[in-house]
Amino acid sequence: MLKDVTFRLAPATQEDAASMMDGIRAAEMLKGVRGGDAVNREAVQDIIVRVSQLVSDFPEIAEMDLNPVFASKDSAIAADVRIVVNFSPKPARFRPEEKDVVASMNRIMKPKAVAVVGASNEAGKIGNSVMKNLINGGYRGKIYPINPKDAEVMGVKAFKSVKDVPDEIDVAVFAVPAKFVASALKECGEKKIAGAILIPSGFGETGNIEGREELQRIGREYNIRLMGPNIYGFYYTPSNLCATFCTAYDVKGSTALSSQSGGIGMAIIGFSRSAKMGVSAIVGLGNKSDIDEDDLLLFFEQDENTKVIAQHAEDLKDGRAFAEVAKRVSKKKPVIMLKAGRTAMGASAAASHTGAPAGNDKIYEDVLKQSGVIRARSLRQMLELSRGVPILPTPKGENVVIITGAGGSGVLLSDACVDNGLKLLKPMPDDLDAAFRKFIPPFGAAGNPVDITGGEPPITYVNTVKLGTEDDRVHALIPGYWHTIVTPPMVFARNMVQIVNEMKEKGKVKPVVASLAGDVEVEEAAQYLYENGIPAYAYSTELPVEVLGAKYQWARAAGLL
Amino acid sequence: MLKDVTFRLAPATQEDAASMMDGIRAAEMLKGVRGGDAVNREAVQDIIVRVSQLVSDFPEIAEMDLNPVFASKDSAIAADVRIVVNFSPKPARFRPEEKDVVASMNRIMKPKAVAVVGASNEAGKIGNSVMKNLINGGYRGKIYPINPKDAEVMGVKAFKSVKDVPDEIDVAVFAVPAKFVASALKECGEKKIAGAILIPSGFGETGNIEGREELQRIGREYNIRLMGPNIYGFYYTPSNLCATFCTAYDVKGSTALSSQSGGIGMAIIGFSRSAKMGVSAIVGLGNKSDIDEDDLLLFFEQDENTKVIAQHAEDLKDGRAFAEVAKRVSKKKPVIMLKAGRTAMGASAAASHTGAPAGNDKIYEDVLKQSGVIRARSLRQMLELSRGVPILPTPKGENVVIITGAGGSGVLLSDACVDNGLKLLKPMPDDLDAAFRKFIPPFGAAGNPVDITGGEPPITYVNTVKLGTEDDRVHALIPGYWHTIVTPPMVFARNMVQIVNEMKEKGKVKPVVASLAGDVEVEEAAQYLYENGIPAYAYSTELPVEVLGAKYQWARAAGLL
Repeated sequence: MLKDVTFRLAPATQEDAASMMDGIRAAEMLKGVRGGDAVNREAVQDIIVRVSQLVSDFPEIAEMDLNPVFASKDSAIAADVRIVVNFSPKPARFRPEEKDVVASMNRIMKPKAVAVVGASNEAGKIGNSVMKNLINGGYRGKIYPINPKDAEVMGVKAFKSVKDVPDEIDVAVFAVPAKFVASALKECGEKKIAGAILIPSGFGETGNIEGREELQRIGREYNIRLMGPNIYGFYYTPSNLCATFCTAYDVKGSTALSSQSGGIGMAIIGFSRSAKMGVSAIVGLGNKSDIDEDDLLLFFEQDENTKVIAQHAEDLKDGRAFAEVAKRVSKKKPVIMLKAGRTAMGASAAASHTGAPAGNDKIYEDVLKQSGVIRARSLRQMLELSRGVPILPTPKGENVVIITGAGGSGVLLSDACVDNGLKLLKPMPDDLDAAFRKFIPPFGAAGNPVDITGGEPPITYVNTVKLGTEDDRVHALIPGYWHTIVTPPMVFARNMVQIVNEMKEKGKVKPVVASLAGDVEVEEAAQYLYENGIPAYAYSTELPVEVLGAKYQWARAAGLL
Repeated sequence: MLKDVTFRLAPATQEDAASMMDGIRAAEMLKGVRGGDAVNREAVQDIIVRVSQLVSDFPEIAEMDLNPVFASKDSAIAADVRIVVNFSPKPARFRPEEKDVVASMNRIMKPKAVAVVGASNEAGKIGNSVMKNLINGGYRGKIYPINPKDAEVMGVKAFKSVKDVPDEIDVAVFAVPAKFVASALKECGEKKIAGAILIPSGFGETGNIEGREELQRIGREYNIRLMGPNIYGFYYTPSNLCATFCTAYDVKGSTALSSQSGGIGMAIIGFSRSAKMGVSAIVGLGNKSDIDEDDLLLFFEQDENTKVIAQHAEDLKDGRAFAEVAKRVSKKKPVIMLKAGRTAMGASAAASHTGAPAGNDKIYEDVLKQSGVIRARSLRQMLELSRGVPILPTPKGENVVIITGAGGSGVLLSDACVDNGLKLLKPMPDDLDAAFRKFIPPFGAAGNPVDITGGEPPITYVNTVKLGTEDDRVHALIPGYWHTIVTPPMVFARNMVQIVNEMKEKGKVKPVVASLAGDVEVEEAAQYLYENGIPAYAYSTELPVEVLGAKYQWARAAGLL
């Protein structure tokens, strides 16, 4: 007898996955399904898919309640159905053709000319900060300050309206109060600007729904895409473009991040600068009146400067579109998502923050999994994975080997491997085991972890790690370092980097992550390792394994393993 | 019908909890219990308890297999029983009286005189490093180098044997090869030294079981307690005592840590120094031939310099003793445990590292929970909790309030509260809600999280956090800071510390933890907050909440909430 269960399906097709999102409500309602041990899974699945389809085909259906559903071995039947209809439903979300999205997004993210609507000479004003960031950030395209009074802003010739600018403009950054946005947006539309970066707040989040809808109408009418409103703007480092009023940022890397929240955006910048991770882009999506996660996926999919995409989202405005696009993009580039509002309390907070509706997190879990998206469980984890995943090469098989100087680290690294879905090469093939044993003291332990023991000189780490890297039965390596006077941290780090580089030349490219146990000098060594292709952490046996685990999770979902 | 389940009990009494540990094997064997929906839980429980008792009372029982056990609504019966006996079983573990443990441990941890067996003038030797650490660490008791040849070691008069030393000696640190340990240990016994710190390896971990048993016999004969073998030694900072060959360490704090692994010990030192957390003690337990976790608990229970106890363990040699002691000690001081070898792969690694047997982790989980022990899930988490838990005052109730400048952080902080078993004050009482609203802009959100919005000046953080601290319906606060030019990080940090200090004077003592989203300057602010009583983290919404959650978990288990 099943009771109080929410049915979770593993959708068989892309369409199923997409309709799952529409079917959130349906699945929620199927909580009351009753059946014996042998429930006909397909029959229940069929009901959910049909309900989803119905809800999706008829936007007039505001609510649909199947309760109870009796499921037996042979069939599933809804004993009672309640349908609430609403004949003035919201219009379906506008969804342009993919090629149009990409064309617009390319003009927005890699503009030849940027206008700043509300550019100002007055320090402290948003329009002044944006100008400073554009100029000081090193952007090499044209900058057009738009200001009704001043002839120049920060030494750059200003115009009264975008329409007065003689050249083409790709993107306009808005730094004017909410009430001036609509008319300026219309002018941007007439000027055929591809995108408006709507920094101003005072729309959806304050209950000004009409204001937001007006912007959306203008956007559609003139084919101008809207980022925001209520955002910090965006960064695209390959163009040295800081279209934002926040801190300037220019450390280049290959992860593109986005966030719905300004606070999270600032955390990305701080972490990124502190960890020297670098980014290709940081994008604020705010209240997502138009551009959302799947638009960004489409751009970053074809962006040669981006290798990994990480997104913080409080909701998905269009789950079907996201699942469709993410499923394809994640086959090419790892997609990481931090879905905030996982819990009921979090979802309720999200509702008052960005108006995100409370979705059933189990459904998000399934959809993200089916779409090949790596789900980050915390802000710091999203950041750490953003840093580590693009650095690691794709593994060619499942066999992980731990080589450690500290037996205690070996135990914890083994636990972490299990936690992160990694498989240790076990049992170690006899010849490989014998080969490892040759290098380690008799009281060390071969097997896996290979415990080389703590007192060993650098050459023991070198010999064993080299052996693991050379052997084709080993697909990934986790060296666990123990700080001793005999093998100082930087000696270990330089050796590891040298091995990985030598092996690369021989075509032996494998992911290597390292855990360092020791006094504070291990921090410098970890940073050096990280900067040279080996994600490494001091005082942690879990973090390096989480990074490796995420790379594996992606590789499996992308069909590369 | 139940199949392939391991029965997990929530032991009702302390004795049950203890016998659970002995009953690991019994519970494992009960995997095959069969029964209908309505299994008589008490009957099955009874079987397990009886089996445990049997196994514990008759050490001759090497293995006992009840399979199958039929459980019905009314009873549970074992249909077949197989017992393997071994008439030369291991002797029961020696367990001295608690008062004797405490007396010995006090002499060991706070010695008036320390002998270094194998003290050496030769740089690079362990006996030289130990001498250096004792002298340079600032230890003010007497130091007696024991060296058969040299008249002085590092300027200190040396003796050929501990027996030649005219004064009383409390503890002897061993820095001689394994083969010389037994005879020197006997001399220590004759000298009535309370404890031997056995740094040398070459006993249990190399299969030299006889050698280890010989030391244990000598220890028992002369009533000398053994720490190790195969350890780094120990630190007790209140006495400036570094009885170790590893890095000297002297940052004082109130957490006592121990580890079975030298690597983990070094990670503790590195993290502790880097985070400026300070410790009261760091102890290496290694192969635990004698002194183990419960001996340490007994010492730290009554140690005025220790407020929190954190232990890394690969096994518990005597689960019954640990559960008994931990249950009592954890009522007074939080006990944190990182149990390594949680997973099958980890346990197998532990078996080859310290010979720790693979226990059923579910049983550990129950026993630790029943004993009021906070279980750390990772090395870094054990370290972070060691740092944060002693700083926080004990909460007086369950109502947590989040006050945030970044709505996005508020959502993630809410998720983290749920993840860590914390309850938000919801619904916010009307009068309190109205009071918060007075301080925040109209487009901010009251409720909980209180979203003060990003652009606010320092006074808004001050007013709202002060309000939360003053109101007796609020028991803990989580400020979420968003870095802006208007409210720079250090201004926020100084304000928070000032409020907490002012409130302390008014008797309003509440735990406060903070999450900081922003550019790198937030790291300095987080460090300042931490050093002034507010555990705070940059770029993380989870870590501060984990610390608060651990404090709550402890307070609940200790019956303080």
